[in-house]
Amino acid sequence: MTLQLHDLTLRGFASDNYAGVHPEILDAIAAANNGHQIAYGEDVYTARLHEVFADHFGAGVEVYPVFNGTGANVVGLQSMLPRWGAVVCAKTAHIHTDEAGAPEKVAGIKLLPVETPDGKLTPELIDREAWGWGDEHRAQPLVVSITQTTELGTAYTVDEIRAIADHVHARGMKLHMDGSRISNAAATLGLPLRAFTTDAGVDVLSFGGTKNGMLYGEAVVVLNPEASEGLIYLRKLNMQLASKMRFISAQLIALLTDDLYLRSASHANAMATRLRTALEAGIADGSIQGVGFSQKTEANGVFATLPSGVADRLRQHFRFYDWDAANNEVRWMCAFDTTEDDIDAFVAALTQELRDA
Amino acid sequence: MTLQLHDLTLRGFASDNYAGVHPEILDAIAAANNGHQIAYGEDVYTARLHEVFADHFGAGVEVYPVFNGTGANVVGLQSMLPRWGAVVCAKTAHIHTDEAGAPEKVAGIKLLPVETPDGKLTPELIDREAWGWGDEHRAQPLVVSITQTTELGTAYTVDEIRAIADHVHARGMKLHMDGSRISNAAATLGLPLRAFTTDAGVDVLSFGGTKNGMLYGEAVVVLNPEASEGLIYLRKLNMQLASKMRFISAQLIALLTDDLYLRSASHANAMATRLRTALEAGIADGSIQGVGFSQKTEANGVFATLPSGVADRLRQHFRFYDWDAANNEVRWMCAFDTTEDDIDAFVAALTQELRDA
Amino acid sequence: MTLQLHDLTLRGFASDNYAGVHPEILDAIAAANNGHQIAYGEDVYTARLHEVFADHFGAGVEVYPVFNGTGANVVGLQSMLPRWGAVVCAKTAHIHTDEAGAPEKVAGIKLLPVETPDGKLTPELIDREAWGWGDEHRAQPLVVSITQTTELGTAYTVDEIRAIADHVHARGMKLHMDGSRISNAAATLGLPLRAFTTDAGVDVLSFGGTKNGMLYGEAVVVLNPEASEGLIYLRKLNMQLASKMRFISAQLIALLTDDLYLRSASHANAMATRLRTALEAGIADGSIQGVGFSQKTEANGVFATLPSGVADRLRQHFRFYDWDAANNEVRWMCAFDTTEDDIDAFVAALTQELRDA
Amino acid sequence: MTLQLHDLTLRGFASDNYAGVHPEILDAIAAANNGHQIAYGEDVYTARLHEVFADHFGAGVEVYPVFNGTGANVVGLQSMLPRWGAVVCAKTAHIHTDEAGAPEKVAGIKLLPVETPDGKLTPELIDREAWGWGDEHRAQPLVVSITQTTELGTAYTVDEIRAIADHVHARGMKLHMDGSRISNAAATLGLPLRAFTTDAGVDVLSFGGTKNGMLYGEAVVVLNPEASEGLIYLRKLNMQLASKMRFISAQLIALLTDDLYLRSASHANAMATRLRTALEAGIADGSIQGVGFSQKTEANGVFATLPSGVADRLRQHFRFYDWDAANNEVRWMCAFDTTEDDIDAFVAALTQELRDA
Repeated sequence: MTLQLHDLTLRGFASDNYAGVHPEILDAIAAANNGHQIAYGEDVYTARLHEVFADHFGAGVEVYPVFNGTGANVVGLQSMLPRWGAVVCAKTAHIHTDEAGAPEKVAGIKLLPVETPDGKLTPELIDREAWGWGDEHRAQPLVVSITQTTELGTAYTVDEIRAIADHVHARGMKLHMDGSRISNAAATLGLPLRAFTTDAGVDVLSFGGTKNGMLYGEAVVVLNPEASEGLIYLRKLNMQLASKMRFISAQLIALLTDDLYLRSASHANAMATRLRTALEAGIADGSIQGVGFSQKTEANGVFATLPSGVADRLRQHFRFYDWDAANNEVRWMCAFDTTEDDIDAFVAALTQELRDA
Repeated sequence: MTLQLHDLTLRGFASDNYAGVHPEILDAIAAANNGHQIAYGEDVYTARLHEVFADHFGAGVEVYPVFNGTGANVVGLQSMLPRWGAVVCAKTAHIHTDEAGAPEKVAGIKLLPVETPDGKLTPELIDREAWGWGDEHRAQPLVVSITQTTELGTAYTVDEIRAIADHVHARGMKLHMDGSRISNAAATLGLPLRAFTTDAGVDVLSFGGTKNGMLYGEAVVVLNPEASEGLIYLRKLNMQLASKMRFISAQLIALLTDDLYLRSASHANAMATRLRTALEAGIADGSIQGVGFSQKTEANGVFATLPSGVADRLRQHFRFYDWDAANNEVRWMCAFDTTEDDIDAFVAALTQELRDA
Repeated sequence: MTLQLHDLTLRGFASDNYAGVHPEILDAIAAANNGHQIAYGEDVYTARLHEVFADHFGAGVEVYPVFNGTGANVVGLQSMLPRWGAVVCAKTAHIHTDEAGAPEKVAGIKLLPVETPDGKLTPELIDREAWGWGDEHRAQPLVVSITQTTELGTAYTVDEIRAIADHVHARGMKLHMDGSRISNAAATLGLPLRAFTTDAGVDVLSFGGTKNGMLYGEAVVVLNPEASEGLIYLRKLNMQLASKMRFISAQLIALLTDDLYLRSASHANAMATRLRTALEAGIADGSIQGVGFSQKTEANGVFATLPSGVADRLRQHFRFYDWDAANNEVRWMCAFDTTEDDIDAFVAALTQELRDA
Repeated sequence: MTLQLHDLTLRGFASDNYAGVHPEILDAIAAANNGHQIAYGEDVYTARLHEVFADHFGAGVEVYPVFNGTGANVVGLQSMLPRWGAVVCAKTAHIHTDEAGAPEKVAGIKLLPVETPDGKLTPELIDREAWGWGDEHRAQPLVVSITQTTELGTAYTVDEIRAIADHVHARGMKLHMDGSRISNAAATLGLPLRAFTTDAGVDVLSFGGTKNGMLYGEAVVVLNPEASEGLIYLRKLNMQLASKMRFISAQLIALLTDDLYLRSASHANAMATRLRTALEAGIADGSIQGVGFSQKTEANGVFATLPSGVADRLRQHFRFYDWDAANNEVRWMCAFDTTEDDIDAFVAALTQELRDA
């Protein structure tokens, strides 16, 4: 049988999860193979994983490998909340817009979404929904969830996160971070992971792997053990406990070893910057007309507006998503495997389509 | 960094998920790598997967890859049941004993467990809980779930399954099969997969991969499309939708190609038979004393009783689980990678421990 | 023992559920007492209730008495939705703001709240969240819920409801009405109940009783039987099935007999109008200064803004709630037992406090 | 309109909730009527209720009025359990057999039912399911729930309850009591309520009112505040918070005043005893043949076996339920309003049917 069925030349900007697996990750899986290891996390890879996360996030952190990002978010949030709890989040948060209602449906968590200009919450924005403690008629807002980097390609600074954490903690709430693209944040901030997580006051983190070159696997990371309870049970009852956990752990170890997480994310970020810079240059010299930018490019995504009809024609060559079709806004994502040639070809194609428009 | 952390010589009989990944599976993952593929199942591997499952289970079946077995069961059962539904199952069923309450906690499914002698339901046993339709005070028993092969290492015959299916359907209920070890069933029955599933009246199947040499991944297989609704949404909201789905699909394709599923399962079954045969020979010739068998060995597990204390001493050499510690009952599982030497060494060690007892 | 513990002279404008029970309702309970009646709804009062609701809402409607309004909403919505469903509602909707997350926590229903100026949805406002059907990442918006009269004291016209119903149905969605104050709507519109419910395209209704003089009890009313499934089971499993149902049914019968619902609601509405008229007269003649109105008074509530500090002082005489404390907005509700003297005394007290301010 | 629709002469033995409302309860409701009282429990009746419950159950207990028994059980159990918890109960427990799966469906609580001969758990029976703490694959058995008096008409002694409580607490679990018929227990034991609840080690109690002459209303009573958390929120989010709570509180006060609870329950118990005694006398003197008793009569229910066909004929005169139709077992319940004449007429009718059989 021919195992390879796909067209290797297809490239696009739809999502960082359209990419495959980084070769160093595949090597780690192969190395962890053969022989018997205790299932469900009593293996030596998962043991080592705890040391690796302690190195990156601080002594005393706990790490619980899971299958995917929605799982990490929903399991982590449950561990932070009683049955009567609610979560304040940006209206663009993945937990609100892209998880099919999993927080509500699986965990009974009420979300209190807040409009933001750029996907980033602030203390003031949080206060729009963070109130009513002690009122039995209101689901109690006990957690704030932020995404780093955000769903809009922006990044919180350390000071912004710390201000949120202080604000949240002063009100008896806890701070959750959806770090599906946390490596991209480390790359753009030029900071170690703990600087904008543990040290900035984040309590529980969803650590992302799949969007940064892993085959599958993320982790719930408890940075503040007092903020989380029962994860060992919650992971299993939420169907996120891998029997052959050694392989998720081996991937995560590889990602956090020799700066693979940072190399991959820095590259993805750089490709987005290359794309934006090229387009801005074209706009400046008049070769590109009708293109605008709706968000800053602080990580691996570019959010742009196009003349009507251009997106659909361009998609015949490169797959990508509309972000807000009504406003002709599109999203272009770069991955660890995006090449400079990909960017250049895409800019050329866009330029051509605009000309033909 | 040395990627390989584990001791390759460690072997045991604890579970088929202590084994690693079959090399043909790893090859399939590597072949599916590189380039971009649409995430969440619009890739060419998942497209091919539908053809492969149609070949094995019949035209018109639907296949939904998921991460793990608990996920497959809970998602599949939800698709078969309204909010007021209950599931009749054996008291030893994995959904009742080993899923941390996921059916109840995630899906609000009430289980109605029935005692069985051998892990197998019968029409008569089902009727102990299948009653009360129309009574608003009783969670409505609308699905029966059987496990093939069972958690006790036994296998349903085609006739037994068909009798259950007829009985269940005649009462307006549906039949679910937890096929975590479905390949072992195909091997022991010597039948194609569809003979004891689709053709025997099973409506929805959890198709197992991880316990038979896959890295991760199972599938909900809808054999009777009228018996299931909303799987596309349920999979996502239950946190079982893989973004890089091509890799689960590629593994499942490999498993079902060139009879890999059957070769691996037949081997595992044969190793269990070798173990049982060796022990029975020892019992017959008096070299082994105090060992009994609590279940038939129809697949890849041997359930035995040992003299008090022997299990703990034997475990210093080979890991395995107590099944019913109060009765000195243990479970020994074989996997695709169990070797004849493993069996022989284990029998020798057990014989020695018995002698020392 | 002295049974009566409370101060009968205490009056206020906090909520229509601060009032007690209308004497005709108490009479109906007493009349239904004594002797044995089948529990859980097979009694003669519940049988008659179906006829009474058919008279008011049309042949073929189904009525399911429940305990309270949150129960009616959550049970009714569940009957309209699959597990993957979401509900579009106004951000001020009771289901979003005052039910402690019951829709999410008990039923796993995701709410998609929309900002409105006056508590009323429109087709345009609905469209802000009614999209994404078929996208497995989005909880599917399959129901729109409106409140009549709204939580802001406003009322939908028949045309407005019909426009929403047509819009909703054209998209394959269903229309739910929270009719906690449906009698006030009938009174303000001067229309029979069915004119703005069944005949306007509402599918399922929460019929309110407690806020209009009942001791306890509401009802889920299925106006379109094709839009609802499983209510008989859902009511029980949601803990809303009264064993002595005859008494809820007897109250509902009394409420809908001899126009009690309309007499009580018309009176409550008239008292709110009297309050607003008196205040507007004072504003016009300069005797009242600093008072504004933030919503129309179309039913039994007046929403006003006061100079800072006035609300707290006035509350020493009459209990009522802040609506938006940050903006000095308050809510004054009238009930079936509010008297003209209550209104006049309240206006006098407010006038005095404003003068002292 | 004629308010009274039912035939006052209909009498039966189907359930204690076929009876109506005790006149002293109706008086209490009327006395609590008129004037305004703060909704949702800040009224003076609910304040007094706390004193009344403290008198009966001990200082420091907390009482949360709710609508019905299923509500009391499900809300109370939730307050005792984390998301990963399970409840050991008798297989005949109301929570397992008659609540439509509410514990599982609303609260995600897994039940671990145990067969019992008489509806009563013992430490030994509890141990069949109370194990596996710390094992993430097993829903954690953290609460044991007993029913007093049981669903089979039997009663736990104080010593039996204390033995269970000690056993449960020694394992870190908590003890819940479903006291739907707790008054019948007080009557049969001849003990104050606290003797077999607070003082015997029960942590949380569902206090029953409806089956003992209340119109509606039960209460979650926290006897050990350390065993329960968040009830104020859980009651509301589970749709069990009455707006006009003063009326439930007034009823509960009346029930616990002047020993109404005890007078009513003692009478109901006495009627069951009268029934059983009469039947036993008939059996002894040969006038009644073919009747057996399947349970002791320790409260207000008689469980009997009849010759085939007799039950259906007898039901033409008096309504009652089959308990185990396959074994011709029936249940006859007496209520506060059962009269000696009812019993005598029933015995006569049964005697006649047996003769005709």
